Amino acid sequence: MDKSLQELADLLGGYVSGDPLIRIRGLGTLETAGEGEITFLANPKYAGKVATTRASAVVLSAGANSHGRHGIIVANPYLAFAKLLTLFTQRPRRATGIMKGAHVGEGVTMGEEISVHPGTVIGNGVKVGHRVTLHPNVTLYEGVTLGDDVTLHAGVSVREGCHIGNRVIIHNGTVIGSDGFGYAPEGNSWYKIPQIGCVVIEDDVEIGANVTVDRAALEVTRIGRGTKIDNLVQIAHNCVIGEDCVIVAQAGIAGSARLGNHVTLGGQVAIVGHITVGDNAMISGQSGVMGNVAAGEILSGTPAIPHHARLRSAAIFPHLPEMRKTLNRLGVRVSKVEEEVVHARREIPGRET
Amino acid sequence: MDKSLQELADLLGGYVSGDPLIRIRGLGTLETAGEGEITFLANPKYAGKVATTRASAVVLSAGANSHGRHGIIVANPYLAFAKLLTLFTQRPRRATGIMKGAHVGEGVTMGEEISVHPGTVIGNGVKVGHRVTLHPNVTLYEGVTLGDDVTLHAGVSVREGCHIGNRVIIHNGTVIGSDGFGYAPEGNSWYKIPQIGCVVIEDDVEIGANVTVDRAALEVTRIGRGTKIDNLVQIAHNCVIGEDCVIVAQAGIAGSARLGNHVTLGGQVAIVGHITVGDNAMISGQSGVMGNVAAGEILSGTPAIPHHARLRSAAIFPHLPEMRKTLNRLGVRVSKVEEEVVHARREIPGRET
Amino acid sequence: MDKSLQELADLLGGYVSGDPLIRIRGLGTLETAGEGEITFLANPKYAGKVATTRASAVVLSAGANSHGRHGIIVANPYLAFAKLLTLFTQRPRRATGIMKGAHVGEGVTMGEEISVHPGTVIGNGVKVGHRVTLHPNVTLYEGVTLGDDVTLHAGVSVREGCHIGNRVIIHNGTVIGSDGFGYAPEGNSWYKIPQIGCVVIEDDVEIGANVTVDRAALEVTRIGRGTKIDNLVQIAHNCVIGEDCVIVAQAGIAGSARLGNHVTLGGQVAIVGHITVGDNAMISGQSGVMGNVAAGEILSGTPAIPHHARLRSAAIFPHLPEMRKTLNRLGVRVSKVEEEVVHARREIPGRET
Repeated sequence: MDKSLQELADLLGGYVSGDPLIRIRGLGTLETAGEGEITFLANPKYAGKVATTRASAVVLSAGANSHGRHGIIVANPYLAFAKLLTLFTQRPRRATGIMKGAHVGEGVTMGEEISVHPGTVIGNGVKVGHRVTLHPNVTLYEGVTLGDDVTLHAGVSVREGCHIGNRVIIHNGTVIGSDGFGYAPEGNSWYKIPQIGCVVIEDDVEIGANVTVDRAALEVTRIGRGTKIDNLVQIAHNCVIGEDCVIVAQAGIAGSARLGNHVTLGGQVAIVGHITVGDNAMISGQSGVMGNVAAGEILSGTPAIPHHARLRSAAIFPHLPEMRKTLNRLGVRVSKVEEEVVHARREIPGRET
Repeated sequence: MDKSLQELADLLGGYVSGDPLIRIRGLGTLETAGEGEITFLANPKYAGKVATTRASAVVLSAGANSHGRHGIIVANPYLAFAKLLTLFTQRPRRATGIMKGAHVGEGVTMGEEISVHPGTVIGNGVKVGHRVTLHPNVTLYEGVTLGDDVTLHAGVSVREGCHIGNRVIIHNGTVIGSDGFGYAPEGNSWYKIPQIGCVVIEDDVEIGANVTVDRAALEVTRIGRGTKIDNLVQIAHNCVIGEDCVIVAQAGIAGSARLGNHVTLGGQVAIVGHITVGDNAMISGQSGVMGNVAAGEILSGTPAIPHHARLRSAAIFPHLPEMRKTLNRLGVRVSKVEEEVVHARREIPGRET
Repeated sequence: MDKSLQELADLLGGYVSGDPLIRIRGLGTLETAGEGEITFLANPKYAGKVATTRASAVVLSAGANSHGRHGIIVANPYLAFAKLLTLFTQRPRRATGIMKGAHVGEGVTMGEEISVHPGTVIGNGVKVGHRVTLHPNVTLYEGVTLGDDVTLHAGVSVREGCHIGNRVIIHNGTVIGSDGFGYAPEGNSWYKIPQIGCVVIEDDVEIGANVTVDRAALEVTRIGRGTKIDNLVQIAHNCVIGEDCVIVAQAGIAGSARLGNHVTLGGQVAIVGHITVGDNAMISGQSGVMGNVAAGEILSGTPAIPHHARLRSAAIFPHLPEMRKTLNRLGVRVSKVEEEVVHARREIPGRET
């Protein structure tokens, strides 16, 4: 496949600077792209490389120096490059139907152009949308519903009655709808509280590999539209995650916590249960959030405090031994001075105590 | 199904206050329960809602105000509600036998009323108890034994020679008996130490999704009776976990550590190897435990210290920059005073140095 | 199987002290080994037990007191014991071929003496080396290549186009080659950046259970020769891990980070993206590494600082409340002294201000 520079500019919502008719058939970085390929400049740090790249064209923002290169001017060169990458690398989806070695239960509804690979097991009453791909060894329990254009990778489990929206991608080994971790104390032992809710994954969510999302005790654990979840993340029962959130690998969110929209959790973050994290809040990696977070806050540390305050205190942490020593010495010096002053007071002629 | 209030009271070991003959056919929260349903009051904070609930009856403790409602008086309303939830929501188990697409090796012993789903693979010499459910794509390696009433969810692996007790539930994707992480240094490289022990999961244990429990190097990794383990937990080789412990998501326990009974580990806790954690100890989330913990201790932080001491120090942590500044200024002030005192001493008439 | 002491010594590259002809048929610890078995002394702490062990022979280092026992003298008794353990416990591998219930795609190349268990799915164009074991329910996507003597345990997924070297062992549920976590912001939403690179696992690597290794965005995520990775570890896209590294359970390495050779990461460590960790560096458990690490450094804490500095500061952390109180009191005392000095200055006869 190749496209004219003008065709690419139209696709990206940008405009051409240079020859709109040159043909582009692939892409690369400023260093790796060659003849017939397009590259991009997103980080001003690399602006100088535009002059030396062997690429036939460059995607850049309005202000950038094109060094006389053919270019496409766009608002967001990084996004534009991601779209070109999709254009040049995606292979057309080929529906294989239900393959030999797949197992389909009773009362199952299937959309068109589906691919169901060997080893995949679809429980009774499941509803599968159009253009769905179920890679090998996926398990859908009874009553699961999948929207259109869903991709579930090998080894994914979706438990009874859970709902997956349109265009959702779930990577290998991820578990949707396992029982929430709920027990009532009975003497020294633990009585299992039935977890009879479900999980709802809204449209355009992507979930990484070996993630766990527990079903609600009574109602719904919900992952909002467009949210992206990295590998090995834990989301406990009854959590409600907003839209367009980003949850980095190995983060864990305890039961009934609520995240607003566009929240970012760094890797290995822990969010305690029953709290609310406001829209656009950002929690830096490994932090432990123990209470509500206002919209837009940027927190770090355990317990989490404002990020900049945390950096300042962390910078002083290595000096604690020296501070303690100074403090102790200062105590001794002050005692000495106090003594001197008392002495002095006594010795000043005519002074009354 | 419906039951009289008296029948429910008998089941819960409580007594009726009000009409023992009214019929109950379901349950809900103080807000959601309606006509013909029962609700509960566990948290005194919500006592006022007993007056306004639309439920036909309320489970409450002896002291609580029933506001004239029909009620069941029990010692522990939360536990009672969990038991009612089980009663009203559990569906009768339906044994499916060995389904088409399941694979059973040689010399396998099977109990009665089992369900073995498609894609599940049972190795040679495996022993399966009565009323066991193996969901799809489970793998039991050679020589595994499962007790009665065991449920293994889709994608669970149990490695060679491991033992699972009665009434154990293991959620999707969990791995029991993978090799312990043991190597001997050989120059700059690592020589694999054979891991020839096994894992024993005792009765009434429940293990979440995508958990890993490694087999022992030589002897046994043991999870004690009644212990509950959340998702994505790591338990290393030769660990011995006591009875009725609670281990929250993403916690990790290093090799040969021993937990007593009724220990609680918060989410993302790390326990180093070869230490002992005493009965009833509680470790708060994200803590790192570096040494033995006495029975009943409550620790937090990394390295873990008593929880209250940790809270006090953590509250001061954000003030470190200000403390350091104060300390430095105080040093200057003391120097000045010292100078003054030396001066003064010299100037006091008749004073000898 | 039994062997003479001399045969064992030859195998270990050691020499016999005592009777080279006695027969050994197994092994145990200093406490558990009995007649006909060999044991080892690695830790000088247990030297006394050599006198009392019931073992027929002892592996020890040159300096150690054999208490008149038959022995094998080696440079590294622990390594020697690991090798004896391998010798006495490994069972001969039995190739089963492609078993019923396995699914093999088109254009697949298979080596000799392979074992492919039921439920395993091999995609089109996959290349499998000699003596490979694929346990049940493994999934190999299109174009995967496996070297010789590879073992993939049940539930492992290897995604499209990834390469696994010789003698690699991957434990249950691990995912190789899931998409890297890469998105470009598009307004408030996230546009998925195609992840078109792959993963290369070099020779002699061992990877634990439920690990995730993401494919590169454009090039290669690489795990170097001989590196050992524990359970539930996350390795993000474009990471390059050196040779003979040890990565303990639940550690996470963010995108494009580079580890040198023989690096050790403790459990639950986090490495941020785009940094370099030098050869032989050691990062203690739960640490968060935010910047480059020089070769040989030993770091701990979040943000990570030199381990010993961290221990010293951590020891003072519990004293922060007391330090703050002391600091405040000292401020009051200094103010008082300052006042006294000013007073005194005024009162000293003849003194000018």
